[in-house]
Amino acid sequence: MTTEAETEPARDRGDSSAGLARERILEAAGELFAEYGYDATPTSRIAENARVPKGLIHYYFKRKEDILVALVERLPEQRVRCEEVVVRGDLIGSLRALVGELDRRLRSSLPLSHLLWREADTHEAVRSALTQRFQLIVEQTRRVIEGALPGGSPGDIDTASVLLARAINHDHSTARLRATGVELDREIRLIARALGAGRTAEEQ
Amino acid sequence: MTTEAETEPARDRGDSSAGLARERILEAAGELFAEYGYDATPTSRIAENARVPKGLIHYYFKRKEDILVALVERLPEQRVRCEEVVVRGDLIGSLRALVGELDRRLRSSLPLSHLLWREADTHEAVRSALTQRFQLIVEQTRRVIEGALPGGSPGDIDTASVLLARAINHDHSTARLRATGVELDREIRLIARALGAGRTAEEQ
Repeated sequence: MTTEAETEPARDRGDSSAGLARERILEAAGELFAEYGYDATPTSRIAENARVPKGLIHYYFKRKEDILVALVERLPEQRVRCEEVVVRGDLIGSLRALVGELDRRLRSSLPLSHLLWREADTHEAVRSALTQRFQLIVEQTRRVIEGALPGGSPGDIDTASVLLARAINHDHSTARLRATGVELDREIRLIARALGAGRTAEEQ
Repeated sequence: MTTEAETEPARDRGDSSAGLARERILEAAGELFAEYGYDATPTSRIAENARVPKGLIHYYFKRKEDILVALVERLPEQRVRCEEVVVRGDLIGSLRALVGELDRRLRSSLPLSHLLWREADTHEAVRSALTQRFQLIVEQTRRVIEGALPGGSPGDIDTASVLLARAINHDHSTARLRATGVELDREIRLIARALGAGRTAEEQ
């Protein structure tokens, strides 16, 4: 006797084996895309590495591009809780803590992040996800500056937030080429000075 | 009678038809790579669009990757002559002129630049060329700051140069998504203030 559960993929039954297969597909796809590139990776190879029948891939992901979209959603959350990083009156320390937290999250997903930067120009879904992630870093930086240095000029804070977010973005997109994050620390201090936060006791 | 010049490609004869064929190959490759991506473009398609026999492509470029390397070399020169942009005592104006000149050169090669940003992660030659181009922007920014604001702190000038180069790099790598260059102008003013160049007459 063959039950419905045996003949159909388990997507809608909410059991853990279904989630596991989809997870294995995404993991294998992420690794293969990062190593060989999206275009050069056939779905048959993904199925092989994920140890699932090829049909199951097409059951979960109608088009190959949908795998890319699902991978974007698996990027680590970049929303940092302000309370975790803001120290009122210590702009440099607060921005350092924000950048440290964003770095920590990036390191957990470096190959996937690089793959997505690479595919941003070819896949609209990836591009818009990366644009949104950049905007999120701008907004968070703005909130951290406002929290650490209340009463600053809104225009200057906006500018400083975009500038620091760009530096973080460049830092992250070239992270594989670099050894240290020293420069970003000096850039934080320069931006703080421009905002009138002056030099901290530590620097004097 | 068949002369040697007729049976062999004209690469080493220095005549203009040889240069023209190589040029047509590179132009066609640049357009196809930018539209369909490097991996998805077969050399036969390049030959077709360039209106040359396929063998000629392999005569000029042993491997397909060599076409990419040759395209890197065709990027517009990013070395801006300091004398053209530096006005002593006017840091903001000098940096604006530098950024304007770099923007002008980027606009002349936007699809090609985007293609190379995209391929930087997969082709070492492209990656190292882009890294060198970034370093060149850092160095030029440093020289413009030193020329416009003599006597500044070398450490601060280094930091400001990297920060502005990162902003320019982000601006250029996302240029297709943006409408204006307004933000970068505000960032230049913020960096100038951090360097002690104060507000210009224009802003007061």
